[in-house]
Formats: sequence, structure tokens, C-alpha cells
Amino acid sequence: MAEQPELTVQGWGPPGTRVAHVAEGGSLELTADAALKRTLPKPARKHLARELGWTPRHTPPVPVEQIELPPGRLPGPVRAELVALLGVENVRDDRESRLRRTGGKSYLDLVRRRSGDASDAPDAVLTPADTAQTAALLELCSRHGVVVVPFGGGTSAVGGLSGTDVDDRPVVVVDLSRMAGLVSVDVPSSLVTAGPGMRGPALEDALAEHDLTLGHLPQSWEFATLGGYAATRSAGQASTGVGRFDDLVEGLTLATPTGVLQLGHAPASAAGPDLLGLAVGSEGTLGVITEVTLRVRPRPRTEQYEGWSFRSWAAGLAALQRLARHDLLPDVVRLSDPDETRANLLLSGGAGARALRGALRSRGHGAGCLLVVGWQGLPTIVRARQRAATSLLREDGGKRAGTRVGEAWERHRFAGPYLRDRLLDHGLLVETLETAATWSALPAVYDATRRALREALATPGRKPLVMTHVSHGYATGASLYLTVLADRDDDLPLQQWLTAKRAATDALLAAGGTLTHHHAVGADHRPWLDREVGARGVDVLRAVKATLDPEGICNPGVLLPS
Amino acid sequence: MAEQPELTVQGWGPPGTRVAHVAEGGSLELTADAALKRTLPKPARKHLARELGWTPRHTPPVPVEQIELPPGRLPGPVRAELVALLGVENVRDDRESRLRRTGGKSYLDLVRRRSGDASDAPDAVLTPADTAQTAALLELCSRHGVVVVPFGGGTSAVGGLSGTDVDDRPVVVVDLSRMAGLVSVDVPSSLVTAGPGMRGPALEDALAEHDLTLGHLPQSWEFATLGGYAATRSAGQASTGVGRFDDLVEGLTLATPTGVLQLGHAPASAAGPDLLGLAVGSEGTLGVITEVTLRVRPRPRTEQYEGWSFRSWAAGLAALQRLARHDLLPDVVRLSDPDETRANLLLSGGAGARALRGALRSRGHGAGCLLVVGWQGLPTIVRARQRAATSLLREDGGKRAGTRVGEAWERHRFAGPYLRDRLLDHGLLVETLETAATWSALPAVYDATRRALREALATPGRKPLVMTHVSHGYATGASLYLTVLADRDDDLPLQQWLTAKRAATDALLAAGGTLTHHHAVGADHRPWLDREVGARGVDVLRAVKATLDPEGICNPGVLLPS
Repeated sequence: MAEQPELTVQGWGPPGTRVAHVAEGGSLELTADAALKRTLPKPARKHLARELGWTPRHTPPVPVEQIELPPGRLPGPVRAELVALLGVENVRDDRESRLRRTGGKSYLDLVRRRSGDASDAPDAVLTPADTAQTAALLELCSRHGVVVVPFGGGTSAVGGLSGTDVDDRPVVVVDLSRMAGLVSVDVPSSLVTAGPGMRGPALEDALAEHDLTLGHLPQSWEFATLGGYAATRSAGQASTGVGRFDDLVEGLTLATPTGVLQLGHAPASAAGPDLLGLAVGSEGTLGVITEVTLRVRPRPRTEQYEGWSFRSWAAGLAALQRLARHDLLPDVVRLSDPDETRANLLLSGGAGARALRGALRSRGHGAGCLLVVGWQGLPTIVRARQRAATSLLREDGGKRAGTRVGEAWERHRFAGPYLRDRLLDHGLLVETLETAATWSALPAVYDATRRALREALATPGRKPLVMTHVSHGYATGASLYLTVLADRDDDLPLQQWLTAKRAATDALLAAGGTLTHHHAVGADHRPWLDREVGARGVDVLRAVKATLDPEGICNPGVLLPS
Repeated sequence: MAEQPELTVQGWGPPGTRVAHVAEGGSLELTADAALKRTLPKPARKHLARELGWTPRHTPPVPVEQIELPPGRLPGPVRAELVALLGVENVRDDRESRLRRTGGKSYLDLVRRRSGDASDAPDAVLTPADTAQTAALLELCSRHGVVVVPFGGGTSAVGGLSGTDVDDRPVVVVDLSRMAGLVSVDVPSSLVTAGPGMRGPALEDALAEHDLTLGHLPQSWEFATLGGYAATRSAGQASTGVGRFDDLVEGLTLATPTGVLQLGHAPASAAGPDLLGLAVGSEGTLGVITEVTLRVRPRPRTEQYEGWSFRSWAAGLAALQRLARHDLLPDVVRLSDPDETRANLLLSGGAGARALRGALRSRGHGAGCLLVVGWQGLPTIVRARQRAATSLLREDGGKRAGTRVGEAWERHRFAGPYLRDRLLDHGLLVETLETAATWSALPAVYDATRRALREALATPGRKPLVMTHVSHGYATGASLYLTVLADRDDDLPLQQWLTAKRAATDALLAAGGTLTHHHAVGADHRPWLDREVGARGVDVLRAVKATLDPEGICNPGVLLPS
């Protein structure tokens, strides 16, 4: 089990990633300015300032040591029982351990942490060694009325680690970092079994020895864990090709307060309802995933990225829809709308971006859309798919924009969350949200969500920038991923975003979108779950929870509406 | 809604299919002999007689009019309420209506019906018009303690319509034949919504007008319904390519005694556990599926079948496994073991079969395995896949056996159940069973299941013929489909098979197979469900059932162990 770096407390990246920090002393303003300049080229800063009514200003987080934690509340006798079960080194309630496992990485999480608020910190952190210890600690905590929150990479974007227990019971985090190893590899069956705390890079390293890959690459890949992917129904950047994480899970072990479930049967079964699918996406509310079995594949023999441009969003969507219909979607698909396309060209700056901008303008695609596609697999098959897709894209008005655009995207595929921290340092609201809809409903969902966000975030002299892309294509529809930038309301930053998020969620559901395509429900989306699955659907989930977790200790305040 | 023929009471095919029947009068023995000769060429009869210790004899079913039905038990007041709800023509309790909806088409079902036993007949048959009427009748029946069994095509192979209610309450069948129409087609999104009573041929006809196909082709295709496919997690002959029925269901409506659930959200969602996957495979135990939304695709531009031969079963499996690993499996895959290959050549008879047998022998594959593969889709993509697969198959020792073999299989793809009736007429036990396992476990599952069947069915002078094929391939494993022929024990035919089935199921589970790959659980497999999903898994299913069906009226005696 390799050492895996933890995320910094107030943002993204391993500790030390920050370039500008009040605590670092020195000429603060200069450092912050330098950081902003490094992050945003001048044309981008000017464009954003003009577009948003934003005044770049230095808004650093409070120093980490000033973050306030409430005192731990784990009762002594419970702590003693836990120590007897796990060993003293695996029951920690020091400030550092608790702070590092407080909440996730949504905008709301970061705003709280940056302002010095860690009132949602767990009372202790447990690190069990295996399924048996996890099951035992769940039984113990259930008996004593102690809330259990599973913790993998801590990357939740929807408050998956920020649920509130209505009974305000003591809370322990089950940190899965000791269960992060490879359990077995079945090469002929293309199956790997691993601990839930394992991260993508470590798994890929281990699989490379067998010439295999999982190929699941969400933006959080450097830090997120396999257990977290399973618990949240993650999707990755190549999911159009390799499938969503739900599709890759062939089995898992779920430790609950009332026993252990072994679910799934590769390759397929008709033995009743799909219980594996109940555990996948359960977000810690039914128990803790202690092992996952995943479908892997040979490492692709070829991997190619290229850019295409379209005159309009509608034209780009129509082209993707036709590819989808004929099962010709590339393995990676990313179609940016005009706002995102323009912003990306400005943000990336430099001569290359200028040249591309000129090229698009000369094709009449100046206000158009950029499509990045990626192909992976056996060269002969990739070539045939690529040729067939190329001819459809051309018929639908697409123009090739070269491989440089595609490769640039590929190089920066994990950069988003790092960039966000820099923007937060300078008075911006930055958050993302996502949904999916059928091809028929997609244009209406796009329009309604953007309109709702713009109306909610507009104030006199200020308006937000909403950038959207399709990131995953399916035969029947596609996902939409929206990035929102706005001048932050420094007095009420949380309320500013909550209002916008509420309006956007209402709008996308009304237009036929799903509550979430790959971020999960968490605490942030739970008020809308009944809109997605109906009141009887929620009743079913509650019945399952009551069976496995009768005391309701498993991640309360998440997933299920209050 | 087109008229759809019902299955004959004692076997397969529309009424009138039988060629030899005691009730038809005339020279019975001659008719029966003629039927057997038409079914089995002389070498096949001789081979089976020798192999099995079977004496061909005439064992016709009793005339339909001699089948005994118990008197209907639906209480008058309940009947009156149902009539008020549905109209008098949709509440039928005449002998013909009840008899036609008694049980399914497993060997156990057929043996009972052929012997004149219809003691499991429902007390009445209801034909609701829509979701609202179905929900209302479920509420009504729940209130009055009347058991409800949903009925689509009546093709269950595992006693899915033959559950026993421990409280022996009155039973109504909900026949879905009035809910058999197309509800909507969303061409851009490749989605179709249809009533649960719609059958494959009617759906394909309707889709053909849009140049679309579903492509789900199980052997029961002529009679089975969409609702039945969803309720049982069906797989079809081209499922390796188009996906299992579970993969094709994008949404459904489930009417339960306590309300209606709308489940699923195309194209994908991360909004909590997969409740759609709970309804799919629920086998009528949670309620009645009243609408299904399915993923469809353009009709394939090309469709090709061909045969390959391998020196041995192990060589054939190894070749398929390598195709699977590289995502090169054909859309149709059917690898027969040596016993099935030999029997197929004998059964098909004629000069073509003789020529093929000779050809196999000359390649040293005389005791080998036949593989039928089928390719569908866009010609350029099919060509690339076919070329890549061909080169792997050759490397793994496969020899092309020509397109005639493949096309012959395709022509006779729905023939199995018709043939079975002829064999039942002549003193044979004929039944199938199926499982799936990872590529690593497959050889052990194959050996263990065959051994168990052979030992259980062997008597002095008699032994069974067990023929096996892989019918569905996946990256991680494959299915096994076994056909068993034996000299029937005319005194205790049910016990003879139940003993063998029990031994085979114990053996395949112990070796790592799944309880069922595509036949579902039904009444026949339910004693083993806890071996598949564990005691806690069964508890979860019970909790879901208690929430939606608190009086336990929905298809009791099926799926959930007693």
C-alpha cells in the first residue's frame, strides 16, 4: 500500500500547493497578484472583469491554524471500546486528523473552510484494517448511537461528507486509507478486486504490470478513491468509451451495522433484482464499501485526441446525437458551448490559442463550439470507427481543428480544481453543476439551467458567466456540465450560491434533466431526491436503510430527504 | 394493438401446432410415428436410443378437454368490485380463460399440463386497460387478500407463474394483453415506450417504420412480452452485441398495491441507488410493470453469420475469452461443446450435415466444437471487427466452417421449444438450465454441472445426454446453456427432474456459477436465492416488498425463499 498524499485543507492539491497564502508572510499583495497573473493571462482578466463586473481583489483564506474546530464529543467508554477493537493508533481525535477529514471540496465546503469554519468536523477518525473490523465498528457505533461517515479521498462536490444528523450525535469518520491495496487480479476474466481506499493512480500502476487499465479518469482522479467512485456512481472523462463507474463495478462488499453483504456476480445474472445497483450510489447511507471488484481491460494500443469545430451549439449537439445513434461516439467526447469555447481560448492565452481563434473565425465558426474527441483501443478498430465518425461529423458541418487542441485538453484534464483555488483567492464565485437528459430534452435543459443561473446571480452591474459542455455521450442522450463564474458576494457567499443552485436545480428538473449525472446526491441535492425517484421511491430507500442500518448511524443527512 | 396468438395449453406454438394428438382421432400411432420421424432423422433416433437407453414410445398428452381445473374461488363481492372497476368483459373466470393462463412452459409445467393437471389454475383473469386500472386493482386485491400474478406471454421456464401462496388465498391473473401498444417513439433519443403486453414481433414491426430495431431475440421471442423480459432480466441471442434486456431498459412504470413508481432516467444518473434495477428482475413480486422505455437502434445495415470449428471445448473457450478481453466478441456467439456439436449434426441430418461432419473430421476436429458467430451493424465497422476477430480466432486454432452453418442456425433459432414437444410425445425428458461464470471459473462450472446431471439421471441401462453451449459472452465471463435429454421415468417424471435439477444447481453454485443467467428465479430457483445474494440480501428484498406490497399479494411463492 503506497503512501498517498492527502488533499490540502482549504482547497485542491497536496499540502503546499497554494502559491499565495496570508500565513506565508512576505509581500502578500505581490504574491497574490503574481498568482493571479500566472493563472489568468491579461486578456482573460480583462474579459472576466468586463463580463462579470468583477473587481479582482485579494481574498485569501484564513490561515489553517486559525480554523476553528469544536471540541471532540466521542464519549470516553465508546472511545475505549473502539481502541480495543482497532488499536490506539487507529482511533485519532487530534486536531490535524479531524480537520483533514472535514467535509469535501464543493464550493460551499471551500468557502466554509477558507473562512475558518470547521464546525462540521468529525469527533474522531477511525482507520480499520479490513471488512471484519469495519463491520465490527459499525455494529459498535450503532449500539452506542455514534454516526459513521466513510471517507475515501474527501473530494465530494455535493456535500457527501457534510450531512447533518438531526439528533446531533457524535460523529466518527471511517478513513479507508488502510484498505487501499490490491486484493486480487484475475487476468483471464479481466477482473480486479481492490480495497475501497485505493486511488486511481495507484490502481493504474498496479494494473500496468499486467498490461491492464481501468480507464476511469474523473477530474478528481489524483485523489478520489475506488470506494468513493462506487458510492457516488462516478463517471470519468473516458466514460463514453469505457463506461461509467457503475458499469465497471462487477461486485462489492458492503459492511453494514447489521452484517456484511457480498453483492454482484460476474459476468451477469438474472437472479432477481439488482442488489449490487442498490449498494452502488448508496453514498455511505447503508454502510461502508470495503472491497470492490472491477472490470478492467487491456491498455489501449493507440490513443488519439483531436479537436473539431461547429458553427453553433445546436449543430454540435446534432452531430453528436447522430454519432450516438450509430454507435460511433468516440471514447472521449467534450463539446463546449460558445461561452465555454470563447473562455477557454482566452484562458489558455498564448500564440497557439490566438492562431486557433483565427482559424475558427476564418471558417465562420468564430462564435462556434469546440469539440474534443478521443479514441482508444486497437489501432484497426479505432481507425474504422474514426473514419466512419469523421465522415458523419463532416456531413454535419464539423471542421477539423487539429490534434493540438485535443492534446492540450488532454494535458490539462485534471487542472480545473487547482485553477478554482486561484480564482477563489481573488473575489470570484466558482462552482460547477451537472445533469443529463435525452437528446430530445437536452436543448431545453441547457436553456432552462443557464437562464436560471443567470437570473439568480445577476445584480446591478454584475452578471455571471455560465460555461457548458457535454462531457459524456450515450445512445439515448448526454450529460451537461456547467461551470459558473461570478463576482462573489463577500458578505453572504453561501447564500449567493445556494439561491442560484436552487433555481438551477428546479429548472433542470422541470425541463427533464436528472438531478445529477455523476456528482451524486450528497447533502446538497437531497431536498430534490423525491422529484427524481418519487415519494414511493424514497420510501423504498428508507426501507432498505432501516433494514441494514436500523439506528440510522450511516452518513445521515446525505442522500435521503429529511 | 394487433391480435397476438396465445400459446397452446400443453406445449409451444399457437393452438393447432401439435401434429399428433390423441384427441385428433384417426390412426393415432401412425400420426405419432410420422411426427417423430419428421422431428428426428433415423440416425438421430438410433443415436439417442443407444446413447440414452431410450425406447421410443408414444406418450401423448391427455386431451385438453380432460384437463382438470379446480372450481374458481374468487368471492362474489370481490368479483363485483373488480367488474365495477374493469368492466364485465375484463373479469373472466370461464374454464378457457383460466386454463390458458395456468403456469408457464417449463418441463415441470408441461408434464403437469400433459398429464391433465391444472390444479394451479388462477381463479379469474383480469385484463386492465392501463396503469391506473392496474394500480386500482392491486389496491383492491390487497385490501381483500387476493393474490395477483402478472401474465405476459406465459413463457416462463422457471415456474415464474407457478408460485404457491402459503395462505392459499384466491388468485387472479393480470393478463397484460390489452396493454400491448406502442406508447411513444423518440427517434433522436433512440427510445421507445411500450405497453408490457407487447411482444417482440409486434414491436419490431412498429419500429421498422422508423428504421429502428430493439434486437432482443430470445428463443421465446414469438410469444414472450416486453414486461416479461423486464421482470425476468431476459437475455436474447444477440445480447452479446446489443446487450441484455436489463441494459436496454431505460425506464419503467411499476404499479404496486401502495402506489405507482416511475423509475429510470435516460441516459444515466447518479441520483442515488438504482431503483430501476430493483424493479427489473422483480418477477411480479413488487407489483405489475405497466410501461417500459427501451433503448433502440438503427436496423443493422449488414448481418452475417458464420461457423467456426475448434479441436476442443477448452480451445473454443480460450478463443472466446481472448476475443472478449479485446472487446472483439461478435454480436451473436454460440459455442457448442462436443456433445452438442455431435447431436446437432445428427439432428439436422441431410447431406449438408454429412458434408460438414466430414469436413470437421478432415481438420482433426471430428470430436470438436462448433462456434456460430453473427455480426451486425455498419458494414465498415463490422468488417474491421470481423477481420480483427478472425485473425485472433485463427491464432487460437479455429477453422472457418463456412456461412452455411451459421445461416442454418439463424433459420432455426426459434425451433427449440417446438422440437421439445415432439420429444415429450415419445417418452423423453427434455429440459434446459443455464448459468454464467467468470472465464476463470467457467471450466469448473461446466464440469461440475454436467457431472451432477449425469449422476442424478443415470439408472442401470440408461444415461442422459447433456449438451452445452456458451450463448452470451462478456468481457469478464460467459453463460452456459445446458440441454438435458433422458429416458423419462413415466411413473415419477417430476421427481426425476427435480432430483437432477437440485443436484445441478448445488453443483453450479458451489463451482462459482450464478443461480441463473437469463431464465430468472421463479418458483424453481427460489430455495437457492440466499446462496446467491446472502441472507442479508434476501432481507433487503423482503423489506422492499413489505413497503410496496404489505399484504404480500404480489406473485407469492416466486423469487423470495419461503
